[in-house]
Order: sequence, then C-alpha cells, then structure tokens
Amino acid sequence: MGEINDKTFYPCSRNSWTNTMFRLQKDTTYMMPAHFGGYPFDTSYQAQQRATMLAMTFETERAELERYIPEEFELLAPEVQIAFNQLTEINWLAGGHYNLVNVSAPVRFNGKKDHVDSAYPLVIWENRTAPILTGREQTGVPKIFADIEDLHVFRPQYSTSVSYEGNTFLSMHFEAQPPMTGDELEQAKRQFRQLDLIGWRYIPKVGAPGADLSQFILFPQWMEVEKASEGKGTLTWTELAVMQNPRQYQIIKALAALPVKKMIRSAMAEGEVILDTTQARVLA
Amino acid sequence: MGEINDKTFYPCSRNSWTNTMFRLQKDTTYMMPAHFGGYPFDTSYQAQQRATMLAMTFETERAELERYIPEEFELLAPEVQIAFNQLTEINWLAGGHYNLVNVSAPVRFNGKKDHVDSAYPLVIWENRTAPILTGREQTGVPKIFADIEDLHVFRPQYSTSVSYEGNTFLSMHFEAQPPMTGDELEQAKRQFRQLDLIGWRYIPKVGAPGADLSQFILFPQWMEVEKASEGKGTLTWTELAVMQNPRQYQIIKALAALPVKKMIRSAMAEGEVILDTTQARVLA
Amino acid sequence: MGEINDKTFYPCSRNSWTNTMFRLQKDTTYMMPAHFGGYPFDTSYQAQQRATMLAMTFETERAELERYIPEEFELLAPEVQIAFNQLTEINWLAGGHYNLVNVSAPVRFNGKKDHVDSAYPLVIWENRTAPILTGREQTGVPKIFADIEDLHVFRPQYSTSVSYEGNTFLSMHFEAQPPMTGDELEQAKRQFRQLDLIGWRYIPKVGAPGADLSQFILFPQWMEVEKASEGKGTLTWTELAVMQNPRQYQIIKALAALPVKKMIRSAMAEGEVILDTTQARVLA
Amino acid sequence: MGEINDKTFYPCSRNSWTNTMFRLQKDTTYMMPAHFGGYPFDTSYQAQQRATMLAMTFETERAELERYIPEEFELLAPEVQIAFNQLTEINWLAGGHYNLVNVSAPVRFNGKKDHVDSAYPLVIWENRTAPILTGREQTGVPKIFADIEDLHVFRPQYSTSVSYEGNTFLSMHFEAQPPMTGDELEQAKRQFRQLDLIGWRYIPKVGAPGADLSQFILFPQWMEVEKASEGKGTLTWTELAVMQNPRQYQIIKALAALPVKKMIRSAMAEGEVILDTTQARVLA
Repeated sequence: MGEINDKTFYPCSRNSWTNTMFRLQKDTTYMMPAHFGGYPFDTSYQAQQRATMLAMTFETERAELERYIPEEFELLAPEVQIAFNQLTEINWLAGGHYNLVNVSAPVRFNGKKDHVDSAYPLVIWENRTAPILTGREQTGVPKIFADIEDLHVFRPQYSTSVSYEGNTFLSMHFEAQPPMTGDELEQAKRQFRQLDLIGWRYIPKVGAPGADLSQFILFPQWMEVEKASEGKGTLTWTELAVMQNPRQYQIIKALAALPVKKMIRSAMAEGEVILDTTQARVLA
Repeated sequence: MGEINDKTFYPCSRNSWTNTMFRLQKDTTYMMPAHFGGYPFDTSYQAQQRATMLAMTFETERAELERYIPEEFELLAPEVQIAFNQLTEINWLAGGHYNLVNVSAPVRFNGKKDHVDSAYPLVIWENRTAPILTGREQTGVPKIFADIEDLHVFRPQYSTSVSYEGNTFLSMHFEAQPPMTGDELEQAKRQFRQLDLIGWRYIPKVGAPGADLSQFILFPQWMEVEKASEGKGTLTWTELAVMQNPRQYQIIKALAALPVKKMIRSAMAEGEVILDTTQARVLA
Repeated sequence: MGEINDKTFYPCSRNSWTNTMFRLQKDTTYMMPAHFGGYPFDTSYQAQQRATMLAMTFETERAELERYIPEEFELLAPEVQIAFNQLTEINWLAGGHYNLVNVSAPVRFNGKKDHVDSAYPLVIWENRTAPILTGREQTGVPKIFADIEDLHVFRPQYSTSVSYEGNTFLSMHFEAQPPMTGDELEQAKRQFRQLDLIGWRYIPKVGAPGADLSQFILFPQWMEVEKASEGKGTLTWTELAVMQNPRQYQIIKALAALPVKKMIRSAMAEGEVILDTTQARVLA
Repeated sequence: MGEINDKTFYPCSRNSWTNTMFRLQKDTTYMMPAHFGGYPFDTSYQAQQRATMLAMTFETERAELERYIPEEFELLAPEVQIAFNQLTEINWLAGGHYNLVNVSAPVRFNGKKDHVDSAYPLVIWENRTAPILTGREQTGVPKIFADIEDLHVFRPQYSTSVSYEGNTFLSMHFEAQPPMTGDELEQAKRQFRQLDLIGWRYIPKVGAPGADLSQFILFPQWMEVEKASEGKGTLTWTELAVMQNPRQYQIIKALAALPVKKMIRSAMAEGEVILDTTQARVLA
C-alpha cells in the first residue's frame, strides 16, 4: 500500500460528472455528513496500527462493579482492567496517531441466541475525535474525549496522565521488569490474540426520553505482541468538581470509588493491533 | 442558577443504595456510555451560551451546490454561509467554551407531511468533542473536529484559521465597519431570531452497508443579538493532501471547489444563543 | 492603527537591495535570532491589551516567604498574590491572546542608588511562548510555561486550572459578588493604576557556574479598570512528582508549602493593561 | 539511573533549615527564576534523548543566504538543511518528548582566536517551551515556538507540518527507500558523529537599543545512528500574513524566498542524540 491518493481513503465520493442532488448509493456505508459520499462496504478491510499498551488489572467488589454492568451480561470476575494505548501508524488515519485509556470488565453476554465472553468497556477516553465518532456510531464503543499524554519514558520508569480541560483525573505509573523471553513471552502473545469488545450502541429518541436504537455489538480485535514486560503499576484517580468536567465527573467519581482489593497484574506490551471492523455484529 | 453541585448537571445517576445490575430508567434520556446514568427528559431545558459570530455569505453555482443537498430538499437559493462562532459561558458545559465553523445552505424540506424552511448544515467543524457527540447523536448535526483559533482582534481587523493536525484549510479575515445602530441594528436583531437547522441523523448498519437510522431532524435555535457590524470579509480555502487529513479532505475539496460568484454579505454579531434542544423533532 | 502590514510589526528588516552578510544596525533592538533583523528602539511604544484578572491575596509566614526573596530586597508584607490574567487584543501580537498566572510578593528594592516599592514576581506561568521570551530576555520577568484554561464562567461562579503536560498543579475558583459601583469602583481603579514589577534578569555563564548577567529591572505597567467585583476565592495547589514536571516541581512544592494564614482579598477586574516596555530600567 | 527522586533533577534547592533571604550559591548554575535554587555545575552531565530525524538539504543562491549569516562567519557552501527531529526519552525532561525543525547552513567561524567549522542554525522551531529557554539562554540557539506534528507514518510515506496558531507555514513529506545496510550505513553513522552548532547569544540592553550580551557559542553534539534511509523529500513553505504570525512572519518569508536550485539529499535517521552541554564555549 505504498501509493496513497484519492482512491486510497475515499473511493466512493460523488462522481464529478453527476449533476443531480445527493442520493445514497447501494452497497455503501456512510458517516455523517453522508452527503459528501461514503465508502464501499468491504469485508476485506481491517483497521491496523502499532500499539504500546500499558495495562493494569485489579480486583474490586463485585456488587460495586455490577452497578455499571447491564443486566444482559454476567460479570465473569470482579476485575477491572485499565489499559493505556499509544497508537501510531494507523492505516485508516493515513499514518496518524492517538492515545486511549480503556476501562473494562470481563463479561458474558447472555442473549436469546448469543452467548459470548468478551471485555465490556465501561468507558474509553481518547485524545482524537475521529476514532471516537467511528467507535460510537459504528460499534457502540463508549468513547469520550480526554487529553492523554504520550508515555514519558525514563527507563525503567513509565508514566502518563489523563486530564480534561486542564484537570487531571487519572495518573498511571509503571516500573518495568526486564522484557519477557521464551515461554513467558509466548504465553503473553497467546493472551493478546483475542481482545474482543462488546459495545452498547445507544442512540436517543428525538424530542422524547428513551432510545431509537439500543444494541449490543461484538467487535472482534486482537494484538500481535512483539515485546512484553511485567512490572509494578500504580493508578491514581482524582475526582473532579462538577464545574471542572460537567459531562464526565460522574463517570470518574464512579470509577474512583471502586475499591482496589488487590492489584492483579501490570504489564506493558508492544506490537500490532488489528480491528476486524466489518466482522462486528449485533448480538441477540 | 448560582449554586452548582451534583444535581445541577447529573440529577439522574444511579441511586447509591441500589445493589443490582444496571437497567435503563423510564423518562430518562441517555448518551453512551448509558450505564453510568442519564438525565430526566425535561422540556423546560434550553442550551444557552454567549456567542461572537462572524458570518460570510456568498453566491455559488446552483448545480455545484445541489450535489451535496439530499433530494428530500429544495435549495432555496444558490448561497453558502460560512459562520464562525466563538461560544463562551455555555450553560450545559458549566461555563465552558468552544468554537465552531458552520457551512450551510438555505433549504426547504419537502416531506409527506412537513414543509419547512431552514438552514441545512453541510458540515460544522468544532474544536471540542462533547458538543460534537451531542450534536451528531441527538439531532444529526454533521459536526466533525478541527482546531479553530479564537478570534485575533486588532480593531477593526479580525481573523481566525481552521486547521487539522497542523494543516490549515480555511482562513477567515474581516474588516469591520462601525457598529450598527437604530433601525439597522433592529433589523439585524430580527434576522437572527431564527437560526433553525435541519440535521440528517445517519447511523450505519453493523456488518453491512446501509443505515440502521436515517432521519431528518428540525432543531430550533436563535440568537438575541446585542451588537452587530457589517464589513469586508475574505475566505481562503486550502485543499489538503490525503495524508494530511484522510477523513475530511474530500469535504474540504468539495467546499473549496464551489465557485464564489459574489460575496453577498459579511457581518459580525454578538449576543446570546439559545438551542431549544427538547423541541427538536423528526421530519416526515 | 487600522492598517496592518509589513511595516506595522517589522519595520526594521534587512533592506532587500543589500547584498552583504548580516551586520547589526545602530539604534535597533534585537531578539534571537538577530540575523533576520530587529526593531527601531522607539520610546513611544507601549504594549497594550485587554485583561480579565482574577487576583487572590493571602497572608503567609514571613520567614517561609523570605527564603525566595533575594537579599537585595526588603519584604514589605508577608503576603502573596496569585493573579490569573486572560489577555486578549494584544497589540504587539497583532490581536492575539494568552493567559498567565503571576505569583508575587510586595517588596522594596534597596540599592545603592535606587529605593523602589514594587511587586516581585516569584514566578509567572504563561501559556504562550512569545511573551515568555520577551519577558525573560528583555526585563528578567521569571516566566515559564504551563497550560492555563480560559475562565469557565457560570455566573457568578468562575474557575480555571493550571497544568503541565496533563498534570494539574493549581486550581482557582471564584464566586463573585455584584459588580462594584461608585466610590468602591473608583478606589479599585486607583489601586490598579500601578502594577510595576521588578524582574531579576539572570543569564548564566557558558561552560562554568555563575552568571554573565545578573540585574534587577523595574518594569512599569498599569491597568485601567472598567469593571470590578470582590468575591470568595479558593486556591488549590497539587504537588507534582519529579517525573510529572522535572523542571518546575520544586517551584510548585515551594509555593504549595507556603502556609495560608488568612485569605486577605479576592477580586476580579476587567480593563486595559499597558506595559511601558521602553521605560524599563536596570536598578542599581 | 533507575531511581528517580528529588535529587535526580533538583539537587541544589534551598536547604530547608535555612531561614534567611535568598542568596546565590557558588559553583551553581541557575535559570530564571533563580531564587528557587539552581543546579551544581557538573561537567559529567550530558543531555540524552532518542531521535527520529528527517533531514532535507538543498542548494540555494549564495548571496541570498549570506544576508542572514553574520559577518563573523564564512559560508562554507550555499546550502540549507531543514531537519525535523522527533525527540523522546529525554533524560533532562525525565523521559518527556518534543519535536523540532532546525534550519541551518554550514559555516566557518573566523575569530581572532577560534577557527571552527560548524552548522549555524538560522532558526529552530520547537513545540515545547522548556528546551527553547535553555537553548536560548544557555547557548544562544535561536529557538522559537511552533506546533510541530509527530510524524505521520504510512510506510514508506512520512509527513509532518509546522504551524503557528493554526496557520501552516511548512510541510515536509518523505518517501523512504529501503533501510541502508553495510558500508552505506557505516558512512551515515560517521556523518552524524558531529552535529555541532554555533549559537549567537544576544541579550538586548534595557531601555536602550543594542546588546548587553552578544556572543558566539560553540555547542558540541552528535548522534549515534542505528537506522537510516535515503529517499525523496519535498518541502513546502507557505508565507503568512502579518496578522497570522506577527513575530515570525518575516523569518518565514525570508526562508520561503531562498531559491531551491537543487535538492541535494533527503534522509531519515533513528538513534541516540547527545548534547555536551557543559562543554559549550564562547568563541573569540
């Protein structure tokens, strides 16, 4: 994919010879604004990117955590994972980059038809709007905005902070052990082969309470790990005042209040992340 | 509204005494992530903010512009308005601020039932993610992200630039005449009494082309103008390469290609803007 | 000054007809890089800007504060003022804008010749580099960088936060009383007629400890207040870890450790600020 | 250097038991504000960092370029190098990061005593204020601020843009050839063994034209290259209006006007960069 031109990213724009008003085309998928054209729906497409991940998992009180898990799920373990990702060389952003912090719990979806084990993201903060929009509107991934520092790397110390309009609400610090090798590394590689998410796509009614769309969506993804290290991780939440973050302070408050009974694991990993976007499906 | 506390912005969170999994509540409206709670649907609510607006309108080729207007509409005039807004003291952001650039055309919606004249936004760039999400998901307003400079003010010169990841694509410059007074000001006030938009809310299908939701939504809003000036406006579009803005370059290319047959009007206005969010309705 | 062109901001550039190597010109003042030209030294020049100021003054322990006051001074009162300023319409930035937070103490300079009462800034954080460079290099004002939010205004509540690379270290909140009128306003106007600073310009030796330049500089400035309100102010310092802000954490630590014995006064003011740059002089 | 604490970055702060006013200490080097303490002058100290460099060199008109080279120098070749650097894991910033764009020419300094060949930076844009301050005040490196995008990497395409307050003035694009190996790589390694700069430290007089300090300073630095590629580089300058960048537009105008007679070389390199800060010396 060495060449890069109009066709690479936008093959489906309006033909320049048409002289009519805008009409949706068949076999095409659109994002708002739709009237500038869309993309052919192509099942061979995968989103790809380089990732440096810093993930910390802790045990919490089951009842406290279940308050944020919809009834359609079963909580597989009273555990929360907080995973920072520094993403670069993103193919669908033409080589651009962004960072995210994913706060998730392990669940089983128990539908009438589907029974699936997956991570359920409670919230994902990202520092770039474009992937927030695709994540929310295409697959119901609950992404919202925050400023997220690139990792500060003072080997073997790593740190980052997450803030909103100048107000820090989460700091992460990690002290790495030497890189994994041999069997340990192979095991880590296997663990990251499956990073599927379930998003809850919820689009509100207009002019009334309730939803026009409410769906659980399985979104397949995985990481091809190249390097990995365990280490000592520390997480610091800071609750914000209403006026500091009126749209998110209740989320931060809820997460900060989850008791940390035990840090289970902290690890860094580096590799390639693949999102199988077109294989996402609505669960029933 | 001098007091500000948990109830001000988030009256509907989970009750702390419940010890069950999450369930949607009646009479409540949610945004993703829904499982941290929502807001009671309250028709007395209005979004309010201070605005400094710099709007430029030009005449273009009808056929060129119609290519981006859905067939459900009639283009009332071959005119494009580009309106920069610097918004402050925003009530639903607890006093926060952001900037936007709205590119719109005047249309009539001709449905089976509804026949409405309104502005149709082709695209709105905003430099804050929270209003992008509410605008898109609640009312189909086609908001996307860009960096938008606060106005540089070197009286009577005003300027701003719009860029994406360091790549400028729109510059606006304005040289103001003395402020309007008397009848001229009264007329300007009347013109801004109605700033309704029609959004096209389009949510794609999962795992297939086409839409799960495709609605035209009328969103009532207006401005109470306090000061206004006419003046000389200049607009400069810069097309971007694919790699500079892979998700938006085709929008910029389309808008930059619209011929400017005549600048019709350039004006600044300052005042209060009100969005009657709960009065939005789906057109049929 | 309605017209704006090359001569407005850069009257002294190299003449295009010269075809020689660069040489400094007489009667010209330069900043690095000097070889692109300088400005004629013009005593009629004043820096001007609009300001919204939020200032809080507290009483502290004299001995604690004196540790950061050079011996050349006498501390006039054991008081610290923390003043946020949102500056707009800045003439020397062609109408640009930036924010600052000035932490200062009232001093008397006792030189061999000069005896001057003034504010002594311990540190000034600014969110724009250009004024940091002119302030430091021209007048020794100890400016360093931080992200400083524009005021969030939810009348009568005001707030802002100061952070470095995502790590908040200072939050300010203010609840305003009704605007001052009559005598009270006139008194406030008189108080702001003099806002002089003394900077300590310190330029280190190259390849050795000690200074190549160490001067105390009086910098005359004032504010023409138009509106003012007293109110209730709160200040919150957050100490940072070394890795969060290796170049400033000791400054934050020092200031956060100053005991607040009493909040003396909190006030907002709006008006025009004038800096009499060319009247600055080295104290002896 | 695995441990990181107060002593790591700030060994020289005021002793907490002193109860006197501030006094400069011997054998210590300070930056403004000096009164919070300084650093022991330590000749074993070196600034270290990881760098990804993208450098493009072109031939220009000698006379055009010489207008910006002080008479104390001889221009060794009518060549300009524009080098983007993405710096990470910076030791003196505790693992922080920033980007720069260095525009330089090859010169010989002909002093009374010193005769040195070196690069002479005409200007260096950086997107972090802390290194701008140290560079200017310690060694006269003419650093000024700009926003500089991290590299967008869509192999083998690389691009970045440099902008000021939303106004792009320089875009760089690079198409890489396969990585160098063998002799070619060894040769590249040798070329980067010496990256010395000469800065012109110029500190203006107070209240008068002319300088209080005007020195040429040799600053030794080098890169230990690990990977390198040649390729096809393209540079695009965009001149800015006065109101878009009043403090820098004349620099951009001057550089944009230098004719590109021939692109000589474009290359990327990755490795470790070392700055031998304490070995800097004033040339005579």
